[in-house]
Amino acid sequence: MEIQIAVAKTNKYATSESGDTLEVVERPNGGVSIVLADGQTSGRGAKVISSMVVRKVISLLAEGVRDGAAARAASDQLYTERAGKVSATLNILSADLQTSTIVITRNNRSPVFIAQGDRIECLSSESSPIGNSRNVRPSISEVPLESRTTVVMYTDGITNAGDRYGDNFDLCTLLESLLDEQEPGAQQIADALLSQAMRLDQNRPNDDMSVVVLRVMQRTVDLVRRMTVTLPVGPASTD
Amino acid sequence: MEIQIAVAKTNKYATSESGDTLEVVERPNGGVSIVLADGQTSGRGAKVISSMVVRKVISLLAEGVRDGAAARAASDQLYTERAGKVSATLNILSADLQTSTIVITRNNRSPVFIAQGDRIECLSSESSPIGNSRNVRPSISEVPLESRTTVVMYTDGITNAGDRYGDNFDLCTLLESLLDEQEPGAQQIADALLSQAMRLDQNRPNDDMSVVVLRVMQRTVDLVRRMTVTLPVGPASTD
Repeated sequence: MEIQIAVAKTNKYATSESGDTLEVVERPNGGVSIVLADGQTSGRGAKVISSMVVRKVISLLAEGVRDGAAARAASDQLYTERAGKVSATLNILSADLQTSTIVITRNNRSPVFIAQGDRIECLSSESSPIGNSRNVRPSISEVPLESRTTVVMYTDGITNAGDRYGDNFDLCTLLESLLDEQEPGAQQIADALLSQAMRLDQNRPNDDMSVVVLRVMQRTVDLVRRMTVTLPVGPASTD
Repeated sequence: MEIQIAVAKTNKYATSESGDTLEVVERPNGGVSIVLADGQTSGRGAKVISSMVVRKVISLLAEGVRDGAAARAASDQLYTERAGKVSATLNILSADLQTSTIVITRNNRSPVFIAQGDRIECLSSESSPIGNSRNVRPSISEVPLESRTTVVMYTDGITNAGDRYGDNFDLCTLLESLLDEQEPGAQQIADALLSQAMRLDQNRPNDDMSVVVLRVMQRTVDLVRRMTVTLPVGPASTD
Protein backbone atom coordinates (compact mmCIF):
# COMPACT_ATOMS: atom_id res chain seq x y z
CA MET A 1 0.00 0.00 0.00
CA GLU A 2 0.96 3.59 -0.40
CA ILE A 3 -0.41 6.54 1.56
CA GLN A 4 -0.58 9.79 -0.38
CA ILE A 5 -1.26 13.10 1.29
CA ALA A 6 -1.72 16.28 -0.68
CA VAL A 7 -2.34 19.84 0.39
CA ALA A 8 -3.39 22.85 -1.69
CA LYS A 9 -3.65 26.17 0.09
CA THR A 10 -4.22 29.79 -0.89
CA ASN A 11 -4.72 33.10 0.90
CA LYS A 12 -7.71 35.37 1.01
CA TYR A 13 -7.52 37.71 -1.99
CA ALA A 14 -5.02 40.58 -1.50
CA THR A 15 -3.85 39.26 1.88
CA SER A 16 -0.21 38.34 2.20
CA GLU A 17 -0.64 36.09 5.20
CA SER A 18 -2.99 33.14 5.52
CA GLY A 19 -4.87 32.64 8.78
CA ASP A 20 -4.81 28.90 8.10
CA THR A 21 -1.87 26.91 9.42
CA LEU A 22 -1.07 23.38 8.38
CA GLU A 23 1.77 21.12 9.47
CA VAL A 24 2.57 17.48 8.88
CA VAL A 25 4.26 15.46 11.60
CA GLU A 26 5.56 11.91 11.76
CA ARG A 27 3.86 9.80 14.44
CA PRO A 28 6.39 8.28 16.85
CA ASN A 29 4.77 4.82 16.58
CA GLY A 30 4.49 4.88 12.80
CA GLY A 31 2.44 6.89 10.37
CA VAL A 32 1.82 10.55 9.84
CA SER A 33 -0.60 13.26 11.01
CA ILE A 34 -1.77 16.42 9.31
CA VAL A 35 -2.89 19.23 11.58
CA LEU A 36 -4.96 22.08 10.15
CA ALA A 37 -6.21 25.10 12.08
CA ASP A 38 -8.01 28.23 11.00
CA GLY A 39 -7.87 31.18 13.40
CA GLN A 40 -10.84 33.50 13.82
CA THR A 41 -10.82 36.37 11.24
CA SER A 42 -7.92 36.51 8.76
CA GLY A 43 -4.41 37.93 8.34
CA ARG A 44 -1.77 38.33 11.05
CA GLY A 45 -4.06 37.96 14.09
CA ALA A 46 -5.60 34.76 12.79
CA LYS A 47 -2.17 33.41 11.89
CA VAL A 48 -0.83 33.86 15.42
CA ILE A 49 -3.79 31.87 16.79
CA SER A 50 -3.72 29.09 14.22
CA SER A 51 0.05 28.59 14.56
CA MET A 52 -0.19 28.44 18.33
CA VAL A 53 -2.87 25.76 18.06
CA VAL A 54 -1.02 23.70 15.44
CA ARG A 55 2.29 23.96 17.32
CA LYS A 56 0.66 22.66 20.49
CA VAL A 57 -0.94 19.76 18.67
CA ILE A 58 2.12 18.66 16.70
CA SER A 59 4.40 18.80 19.70
CA LEU A 60 1.98 16.57 21.65
CA LEU A 61 1.49 14.14 18.75
CA ALA A 62 5.27 13.89 18.32
CA GLU A 63 5.47 12.82 21.98
CA GLY A 64 2.96 10.03 21.39
CA VAL A 65 -0.12 11.76 22.85
CA ARG A 66 -3.39 10.58 21.26
CA ASP A 67 -5.14 12.85 18.77
CA GLY A 68 -8.22 13.55 20.89
CA ALA A 69 -6.14 14.45 23.94
CA ALA A 70 -3.94 16.72 21.80
CA ALA A 71 -7.02 18.55 20.46
CA ARG A 72 -8.38 19.05 23.98
CA ALA A 73 -5.03 20.34 25.19
CA ALA A 74 -4.89 22.87 22.33
CA SER A 75 -8.43 23.98 23.16
CA ASP A 76 -7.63 24.46 26.83
CA GLN A 77 -4.44 26.34 25.99
CA LEU A 78 -6.24 28.72 23.62
CA TYR A 79 -9.07 29.22 26.12
CA THR A 80 -6.59 30.03 28.88
CA GLU A 81 -4.33 32.32 26.85
CA ARG A 82 -7.14 34.30 25.24
CA ALA A 83 -9.68 34.15 28.10
CA GLY A 84 -12.21 32.35 25.91
CA LYS A 85 -12.49 35.31 23.53
CA VAL A 86 -10.86 33.82 20.44
CA SER A 87 -11.81 30.65 18.62
CA ALA A 88 -10.16 28.50 15.98
CA THR A 89 -11.20 25.48 14.00
CA LEU A 90 -8.99 22.42 14.27
CA ASN A 91 -8.76 19.22 12.23
CA ILE A 92 -6.33 16.37 12.74
CA LEU A 93 -6.08 13.67 10.11
CA SER A 94 -3.85 10.72 11.04
CA ALA A 95 -2.73 7.62 9.22
CA ASP A 96 -1.88 5.52 12.25
CA LEU A 97 0.25 2.50 11.34
CA GLN A 98 0.17 1.16 14.88
CA THR A 99 -3.61 0.63 14.83
CA SER A 100 -3.90 0.45 11.02
CA THR A 101 -6.61 3.10 11.05
CA ILE A 102 -7.25 6.56 9.75
CA VAL A 103 -8.27 8.81 12.63
CA ILE A 104 -10.21 12.00 11.93
CA THR A 105 -10.47 14.55 14.73
CA ARG A 106 -12.76 17.51 14.08
CA ASN A 107 -13.41 20.75 15.90
CA ASN A 108 -14.88 22.39 12.86
CA ARG A 109 -18.35 22.93 11.41
CA SER A 110 -16.99 22.17 7.92
CA PRO A 111 -17.57 18.50 7.17
CA VAL A 112 -14.97 15.85 6.29
CA PHE A 113 -15.60 13.41 3.44
CA ILE A 114 -14.55 9.77 3.48
CA ALA A 115 -14.78 7.67 0.32
CA GLN A 116 -14.29 3.92 0.66
CA GLY A 117 -15.07 1.80 -2.38
CA ASP A 118 -18.06 3.38 -4.13
CA ARG A 119 -19.45 5.02 -1.04
CA ILE A 120 -18.82 8.62 0.00
CA GLU A 121 -19.68 9.44 3.58
CA CYS A 122 -19.94 12.96 4.91
CA LEU A 123 -18.92 13.52 8.54
CA SER A 124 -20.98 16.55 9.44
CA SER A 125 -22.10 15.94 13.00
CA GLU A 126 -22.22 19.03 15.19
CA SER A 127 -18.66 19.94 16.18
CA SER A 128 -17.66 23.26 17.70
CA PRO A 129 -14.43 25.20 17.23
CA ILE A 130 -11.95 25.28 20.09
CA GLY A 131 -11.09 28.16 22.41
CA ASN A 132 -14.50 29.54 23.39
CA SER A 133 -15.37 27.33 26.31
CA ARG A 134 -13.76 24.94 28.75
CA ASN A 135 -15.56 21.82 27.72
CA VAL A 136 -14.95 21.53 24.04
CA ARG A 137 -14.87 17.95 22.81
CA PRO A 138 -13.58 16.97 19.41
CA SER A 139 -15.66 14.70 17.23
CA ILE A 140 -13.52 11.64 16.43
CA SER A 141 -14.02 9.03 13.70
CA GLU A 142 -11.88 6.04 12.88
CA VAL A 143 -11.89 4.00 9.67
CA PRO A 144 -9.65 1.11 8.66
CA LEU A 145 -6.49 2.08 6.78
CA GLU A 146 -7.15 0.13 3.60
CA SER A 147 -6.63 0.75 -0.07
CA ARG A 148 -9.14 2.74 -2.10
CA THR A 149 -9.87 5.02 0.83
CA THR A 150 -9.93 8.78 0.30
CA VAL A 151 -10.40 11.42 2.99
CA VAL A 152 -10.93 15.10 2.22
CA MET A 153 -10.86 17.86 4.83
CA TYR A 154 -10.78 21.64 4.45
CA THR A 155 -11.27 25.01 6.08
CA ASP A 156 -14.38 27.19 5.83
CA GLY A 157 -13.01 29.28 2.97
CA ILE A 158 -13.84 26.22 0.86
CA THR A 159 -17.22 25.56 2.51
CA ASN A 160 -18.31 29.15 1.88
CA ALA A 161 -16.85 29.50 -1.63
CA GLY A 162 -19.29 31.26 -3.94
CA ASP A 163 -21.51 32.53 -1.09
CA ARG A 164 -20.88 36.13 -2.03
CA TYR A 165 -22.14 35.48 -5.55
CA GLY A 166 -25.17 33.39 -4.58
CA ASP A 167 -23.40 30.18 -5.59
CA ASN A 168 -22.57 27.21 -3.45
CA PHE A 169 -19.91 24.54 -3.63
CA ASP A 170 -21.21 20.99 -4.04
CA LEU A 171 -17.94 19.39 -3.04
CA CYS A 172 -19.41 15.90 -2.70
CA THR A 173 -20.56 15.71 -6.33
CA LEU A 174 -17.24 17.06 -7.60
CA LEU A 175 -15.33 14.55 -5.46
CA GLU A 176 -17.50 11.72 -6.77
CA SER A 177 -16.76 12.64 -10.37
CA LEU A 178 -13.02 12.99 -9.64
CA LEU A 179 -12.91 9.54 -8.05
CA ASP A 180 -14.63 8.06 -11.10
CA GLU A 181 -11.51 8.84 -13.10
CA GLN A 182 -8.68 6.33 -13.42
CA GLU A 183 -6.82 6.42 -10.07
CA PRO A 184 -6.44 10.17 -9.64
CA GLY A 185 -3.53 11.15 -7.38
CA ALA A 186 -4.16 12.95 -4.09
CA GLN A 187 -2.59 16.16 -5.42
CA GLN A 188 -4.78 16.08 -8.51
CA ILE A 189 -7.90 15.89 -6.31
CA ALA A 190 -6.72 18.63 -3.94
CA ASP A 191 -5.88 20.93 -6.87
CA ALA A 192 -9.24 20.32 -8.55
CA LEU A 193 -11.21 21.02 -5.36
CA LEU A 194 -9.25 24.20 -4.60
CA SER A 195 -9.51 25.56 -8.11
CA GLN A 196 -13.26 24.99 -8.23
CA ALA A 197 -13.60 26.85 -4.90
CA MET A 198 -11.47 29.70 -6.26
CA ARG A 199 -13.57 29.85 -9.42
CA LEU A 200 -16.75 30.16 -7.35
CA ASP A 201 -15.16 33.19 -5.65
CA GLN A 202 -14.29 34.56 -9.10
CA ASN A 203 -10.58 33.92 -8.44
CA ARG A 204 -10.54 36.39 -5.56
CA PRO A 205 -10.87 34.04 -2.57
CA ASN A 206 -13.11 35.59 0.03
CA ASP A 207 -11.23 33.79 2.82
CA ASP A 208 -8.11 31.66 3.28
CA MET A 209 -8.67 28.26 1.69
CA SER A 210 -6.94 24.97 2.50
CA VAL A 211 -7.74 21.48 1.23
CA VAL A 212 -6.14 18.26 2.45
CA VAL A 213 -6.59 14.95 0.64
CA LEU A 214 -5.38 11.61 1.96
CA ARG A 215 -5.53 8.59 -0.32
CA VAL A 216 -4.55 5.01 0.28
CA MET A 217 -3.42 3.40 -2.97
CA GLN A 218 -3.12 -0.32 -3.51
CA ARG A 219 0.23 -0.38 -5.22
CA THR A 220 3.61 0.28 -3.66
CA VAL A 221 6.08 1.35 -6.29
CA ASP A 222 9.18 1.36 -4.09
CA LEU A 223 10.16 1.78 -0.47
CA VAL A 224 11.01 5.45 -0.81
CA ARG A 225 9.19 8.12 1.18
CA ARG A 226 8.76 11.32 -0.73
CA MET A 227 7.71 14.84 0.07
CA THR A 228 7.38 17.85 -2.20
CA VAL A 229 6.58 21.37 -1.06
CA THR A 230 5.95 24.25 -3.48
CA LEU A 231 5.83 27.76 -2.17
CA PRO A 232 5.02 30.69 -4.45
CA VAL A 233 6.94 33.86 -3.55
CA GLY A 234 5.79 37.26 -4.79
CA PRO A 235 3.11 37.86 -7.43
CA ALA A 236 2.12 35.21 -9.99
CA SER A 237 3.63 35.68 -13.42
CA THR A 238 3.63 33.59 -16.53
CA ASP A 239 7.23 34.07 -17.68
CA MET B 1 9.50 33.03 -7.94
CA GLU B 2 8.62 29.61 -6.68
CA ILE B 3 10.44 27.63 -4.00
CA GLN B 4 10.38 23.87 -4.47
CA ILE B 5 11.50 21.49 -1.76
CA ALA B 6 11.71 17.77 -2.33
CA VAL B 7 12.65 14.91 -0.06
CA ALA B 8 13.42 11.28 -0.90
CA LYS B 9 14.14 8.95 1.98
CA THR B 10 14.65 5.22 2.44
CA ASN B 11 15.58 2.91 5.29
CA LYS B 12 18.64 0.75 5.73
CA TYR B 13 17.95 -2.59 4.04
CA ALA B 14 15.74 -4.90 6.10
CA THR B 15 15.16 -2.28 8.81
CA SER B 16 11.62 -1.15 9.42
CA GLU B 17 12.52 2.08 11.11
CA SER B 18 14.77 4.81 9.78
CA GLY B 19 17.23 6.50 12.13
CA ASP B 20 16.90 9.65 10.03
CA THR B 21 14.18 12.12 10.97
CA LEU B 22 13.05 14.96 8.76
CA GLU B 23 10.39 17.58 9.35
CA VAL B 24 9.36 20.71 7.53
CA VAL B 25 8.13 23.73 9.45
CA GLU B 26 6.74 27.08 8.41
CA ARG B 27 8.83 30.03 9.64
CA PRO B 28 6.75 32.50 11.65
CA ASN B 29 8.15 35.48 9.74
CA GLY B 30 7.74 33.89 6.31
CA GLY B 31 9.36 30.98 4.55
CA VAL B 32 10.01 27.40 5.43
CA SER B 33 12.70 25.29 7.13
CA ILE B 34 13.65 21.66 6.65
CA VAL B 35 15.30 19.97 9.62
CA LEU B 36 17.18 16.70 9.10
CA ALA B 37 18.88 14.67 11.81
CA ASP B 38 20.58 11.30 11.76
CA GLY B 39 21.01 9.58 15.11
CA GLN B 40 24.09 7.50 15.86
CA THR B 41 23.70 3.86 14.70
CA SER B 42 20.37 2.83 13.10
CA GLY B 43 16.91 1.50 13.95
CA ARG B 44 14.85 2.33 17.03
CA GLY B 45 17.64 3.80 19.18
CA ALA B 46 18.78 6.14 16.43
CA LYS B 47 15.19 7.16 15.74
CA VAL B 48 14.57 8.22 19.33
CA ILE B 49 17.64 10.46 19.20
CA SER B 50 16.98 11.98 15.80
CA SER B 51 13.32 12.72 16.62
CA MET B 52 14.28 14.37 19.87
CA VAL B 53 16.76 16.60 18.05
CA VAL B 54 14.36 17.50 15.23
CA ARG B 55 11.48 18.15 17.63
CA LYS B 56 13.63 20.55 19.64
CA VAL B 57 14.75 22.42 16.54
CA ILE B 58 11.33 22.75 14.90
CA SER B 59 9.66 23.93 18.08
CA LEU B 60 12.31 26.65 18.47
CA LEU B 61 12.15 27.68 14.80
CA ALA B 62 8.34 27.89 15.04
CA GLU B 63 8.79 30.36 17.91
CA GLY B 64 11.05 32.56 15.78
CA VAL B 65 14.42 31.45 17.23
CA ARG B 66 17.27 31.77 14.72
CA ASP B 67 18.59 28.62 13.07
CA GLY B 68 22.06 28.70 14.66
CA ALA B 69 20.62 29.18 18.14
CA ALA B 70 18.15 26.34 17.57
CA ALA B 71 21.00 24.01 16.52
CA ARG B 72 23.02 24.90 19.63
CA ALA B 73 20.00 24.35 21.84
CA ALA B 74 19.43 20.90 20.34
CA SER B 75 23.11 20.07 20.87
CA ASP B 76 23.03 21.14 24.51
CA GLN B 77 19.83 19.21 25.12
CA LEU B 78 21.24 16.01 23.60
CA TYR B 79 24.52 16.45 25.51
CA THR B 80 22.62 16.92 28.77
CA GLU B 81 20.11 14.09 28.31
CA ARG B 82 22.66 11.52 27.14
CA ALA B 83 25.67 12.73 29.14
CA GLY B 84 27.69 13.38 25.97
CA LYS B 85 27.61 9.71 24.97
CA VAL B 86 25.37 9.88 21.93
CA SER B 87 25.81 12.01 18.84
CA ALA B 88 23.61 12.98 15.92
CA THR B 89 24.16 14.89 12.74
CA LEU B 90 21.91 17.88 12.15
CA ASN B 91 21.17 19.99 9.08
CA ILE B 92 18.76 22.91 8.84
CA LEU B 93 17.92 24.34 5.45
CA SER B 94 15.80 27.48 5.52
CA ALA B 95 14.23 29.64 2.85
CA ASP B 96 13.89 32.82 4.89
CA LEU B 97 11.51 35.29 3.25
CA GLN B 98 12.21 37.93 5.88
CA THR B 99 15.89 38.26 4.91
CA SER B 100 15.44 36.88 1.37
CA THR B 101 18.19 34.37 1.94
CA ILE B 102 18.73 30.64 2.06
CA VAL B 103 20.35 29.70 5.35
CA ILE B 104 22.24 26.42 5.63
CA THR B 105 23.13 25.21 9.13
CA ARG B 106 25.37 22.15 9.30
CA ASN B 107 26.48 19.89 12.12
CA ASN B 108 27.43 17.11 9.78
CA ARG B 109 30.56 15.88 8.04
CA SER B 110 28.54 15.24 4.86
CA PRO B 111 28.83 18.26 2.59
CA VAL B 112 26.01 20.44 1.24
CA PHE B 113 25.99 21.48 -2.43
CA ILE B 114 24.83 24.88 -3.65
CA ALA B 115 24.37 25.50 -7.36
CA GLN B 116 23.82 29.09 -8.47
CA GLY B 117 23.91 29.78 -12.20
CA ASP B 118 26.58 27.53 -13.68
CA ARG B 119 28.59 27.22 -10.51
CA ILE B 120 28.31 24.35 -8.02
CA GLU B 121 29.85 25.04 -4.65
CA CYS B 122 30.50 22.32 -2.10
CA LEU B 123 30.21 23.32 1.57
CA SER B 124 32.52 20.83 3.20
CA SER B 125 34.25 22.78 5.94
CA GLU B 126 34.93 20.82 9.12
CA SER B 127 31.68 20.52 11.05
CA SER B 128 31.08 18.14 13.93
CA PRO B 129 27.91 16.31 14.90
CA ILE B 130 26.02 17.50 17.98
CA GLY B 131 25.73 15.86 21.39
CA ASN B 132 29.31 14.85 22.16
CA SER B 133 30.63 18.01 23.74
CA ARG B 134 29.42 21.23 25.25
CA ASN B 135 30.89 23.59 22.72
CA VAL B 136 29.58 22.39 19.42
CA ARG B 137 29.12 25.17 16.89
CA PRO B 138 27.17 24.74 13.70
CA SER B 139 28.70 25.87 10.44
CA ILE B 140 26.32 28.42 8.91
CA SER B 141 26.20 29.68 5.32
CA GLU B 142 23.85 32.17 3.78
CA VAL B 143 23.18 32.76 0.09
CA PRO B 144 20.66 35.08 -1.57
CA LEU B 145 17.25 33.56 -2.25
CA GLU B 146 17.22 34.04 -6.00
CA SER B 147 16.01 32.05 -8.96
CA ARG B 148 18.19 29.29 -10.45
CA THR B 149 19.54 28.35 -7.03
CA THR B 150 19.65 24.69 -6.02
CA VAL B 151 20.72 23.34 -2.64
CA VAL B 152 21.26 19.63 -1.95
CA MET B 153 21.77 18.18 1.50
CA TYR B 154 21.78 14.57 2.69
CA THR B 155 22.69 12.12 5.42
CA ASP B 156 25.78 9.91 5.49
CA GLY B 157 23.97 6.89 4.03
CA ILE B 158 24.26 8.81 0.75
CA THR B 159 27.85 9.95 1.33
CA ASN B 160 28.95 6.36 1.99
CA ALA B 161 26.86 4.68 -0.73
CA GLY B 162 28.88 2.04 -2.55
CA ASP B 163 31.66 1.96 0.09
CA ARG B 164 31.00 -1.70 0.80
CA TYR B 165 31.56 -2.56 -2.84
CA GLY B 166 34.61 -0.39 -3.38
CA ASP B 167 32.57 2.21 -5.23
CA ASN B 168 32.04 5.82 -4.36
CA PHE B 169 29.30 8.29 -5.10
CA ASP B 170 30.35 11.31 -7.14
CA LEU B 171 27.26 13.32 -6.27
CA CYS B 172 28.64 16.58 -7.62
CA THR B 173 29.08 15.25 -11.17
CA LEU B 174 25.64 13.64 -11.17
CA LEU B 175 24.07 16.86 -9.88
CA GLU B 176 25.85 18.84 -12.60
CA SER B 177 24.47 16.59 -15.33
CA LEU B 178 20.95 16.71 -13.82
CA LEU B 179 21.02 20.51 -13.75
CA ASP B 180 22.07 20.58 -17.41
CA GLU B 181 18.66 19.21 -18.33
CA GLN B 182 15.72 21.48 -19.08
CA GLU B 183 14.55 22.82 -15.68
CA PRO B 184 14.41 19.56 -13.70
CA GLY B 185 12.02 19.70 -10.73
CA ALA B 186 13.32 19.34 -7.19
CA GLN B 187 11.65 15.93 -6.77
CA GLN B 188 13.20 14.68 -10.00
CA ILE B 189 16.68 15.61 -8.70
CA ALA B 190 16.08 14.10 -5.25
CA ASP B 191 14.79 10.86 -6.78
CA ALA B 192 17.74 10.60 -9.19
CA LEU B 193 20.30 11.16 -6.41
CA LEU B 194 18.66 8.64 -4.08
CA SER B 195 18.27 5.96 -6.73
CA GLN B 196 21.92 6.30 -7.77
CA ALA B 197 22.96 5.93 -4.11
CA MET B 198 20.73 2.85 -3.77
CA ARG B 199 22.18 1.35 -6.95
CA LEU B 200 25.71 1.78 -5.56
CA ASP B 201 24.61 -0.23 -2.52
CA GLN B 202 23.15 -2.84 -4.89
CA ASN B 203 19.61 -1.83 -3.86
CA ARG B 204 20.23 -2.93 -0.29
CA PRO B 205 21.00 0.39 1.39
CA ASN B 206 23.74 -0.07 3.93
CA ASP B 207 22.36 2.77 6.05
CA ASP B 208 19.30 5.05 6.20
CA MET B 209 19.44 7.49 3.29
CA SER B 210 17.76 10.90 3.03
CA VAL B 211 18.18 13.53 0.33
CA VAL B 212 16.70 17.04 0.42
CA VAL B 213 16.69 19.31 -2.61
CA LEU B 214 15.62 22.95 -2.54
CA ARG B 215 15.21 24.79 -5.83
CA VAL B 216 14.24 28.36 -6.55
CA MET B 217 12.45 28.59 -9.90
CA GLN B 218 11.90 31.80 -11.81
CA ARG B 219 8.28 31.32 -12.75
CA THR B 220 5.25 31.45 -10.46
CA VAL B 221 2.36 29.53 -11.94
CA ASP B 222 -0.25 30.52 -9.35
CA LEU B 223 -0.51 31.61 -5.73
CA VAL B 224 -1.27 28.14 -4.40
CA ARG B 225 1.01 26.43 -1.89
CA ARG B 226 1.19 22.72 -2.39
CA MET B 227 2.52 19.77 -0.46
CA THR B 228 2.54 16.08 -1.35
CA VAL B 229 3.69 13.30 0.95
CA THR B 230 3.97 9.67 -0.18
CA LEU B 231 4.49 6.97 2.39
CA PRO B 232 4.96 3.33 1.38
CA VAL B 233 3.38 0.87 3.81
CA GLY B 234 4.42 -2.76 3.85
CA PRO B 235 6.58 -4.45 1.21
CA ALA B 236 6.94 -3.10 -2.33
CA SER B 237 4.82 -4.83 -4.93
CA THR B 238 4.10 -4.17 -8.55
CA ASP B 239 0.39 -4.91 -8.71
